[in-house]
Amino acid sequence: MREFAVVTRGRGFYEITREVAAWLREAGAGDGLVTLHIQHTSASLLIQENADPEVRRDLERFFARLVPDGDALFRHTLEGPDDMPAHVRTALTAVNLSIPVRAGRMALGTWQGIYVWEHRQKPHRRVVVGHFVGE
Amino acid sequence: MREFAVVTRGRGFYEITREVAAWLREAGAGDGLVTLHIQHTSASLLIQENADPEVRRDLERFFARLVPDGDALFRHTLEGPDDMPAHVRTALTAVNLSIPVRAGRMALGTWQGIYVWEHRQKPHRRVVVGHFVGE
Amino acid sequence: MREFAVVTRGRGFYEITREVAAWLREAGAGDGLVTLHIQHTSASLLIQENADPEVRRDLERFFARLVPDGDALFRHTLEGPDDMPAHVRTALTAVNLSIPVRAGRMALGTWQGIYVWEHRQKPHRRVVVGHFVGE
Repeated sequence: MREFAVVTRGRGFYEITREVAAWLREAGAGDGLVTLHIQHTSASLLIQENADPEVRRDLERFFARLVPDGDALFRHTLEGPDDMPAHVRTALTAVNLSIPVRAGRMALGTWQGIYVWEHRQKPHRRVVVGHFVGE
Repeated sequence: MREFAVVTRGRGFYEITREVAAWLREAGAGDGLVTLHIQHTSASLLIQENADPEVRRDLERFFARLVPDGDALFRHTLEGPDDMPAHVRTALTAVNLSIPVRAGRMALGTWQGIYVWEHRQKPHRRVVVGHFVGE
Repeated sequence: MREFAVVTRGRGFYEITREVAAWLREAGAGDGLVTLHIQHTSASLLIQENADPEVRRDLERFFARLVPDGDALFRHTLEGPDDMPAHVRTALTAVNLSIPVRAGRMALGTWQGIYVWEHRQKPHRRVVVGHFVGE
């Protein structure tokens, strides 16, 4: 098991593909399965395109429109107008991912990157737990 | 492998964190990975905040607005006005989860609870299958 | 590890349950865990009802309304009016799934089928990577 700390600067995407790949290399991983779990309810793990950054900005635009900050629907508002939207965005995406590993490398597609998606407006320290099973 | 039966009283959240934790303890699990899979297409598994219950009520409000029961868009209506919305809500969330386990305990964050999210209006018996790999 | 190639004919659902089940049988899998990962950012893996095909058509109708092709919100438009919606639809669903296996058979519910959900309008060749851990 390995913990990755990701210090965010507020809402947005923070790529962790290299950190996870480096960990597998250092651990001498061969063939197996890597699982990542984010220990939060207002930030997600997302596999998405790592080429054009406009894709991630469009994802952010879409989710900001789908789950607007300060929506009058929400009653859990004590932690700020972006807190309940952050929970909803987390429910709509993923908090854990499992990726096959072959010869020490994750079987990601060419355009796939692994991101922490911070949903809160303010900076947070996020923890992702990694687990590898295999040989 | 272990089966958890969850008898729901209709739409809403049913926490199973304790049941899963107890199973891992009884099975003598050490370090590894636990996977949960719900065997249904109109109920989800969700990791969400276990503190303020208003968070889960707001989640429910949001999804009820996003995927309204009886929406005229849907043609699969034979099983009731909440059936197709239940399928959509399941597609928008998750049917399986994988969580690293360390020294017999799931590496959940402080505020993370594991829930069966029943999307149908009427009570159902839901089955969640648990798998542990490790030592 | 095993690769499944799925040649799609454009947007829609392509069931792969039988292919995965056949692979587990041929590999002599007993008890364990199977993980599937799709190596793309504009197609998903989905577990959904395998009985009435109208359910999948309604899912498609819902997502087409939720994330409209050609939405003026999007700026990443070079790859066509359906490309950015395909990324959003992928973010809203899943790119990997993990299913417990007992005596060589996936612990799917009676009505659960495993689908590649192609989100692009044109045909694509999609690759799903399968991993099994167990005995």
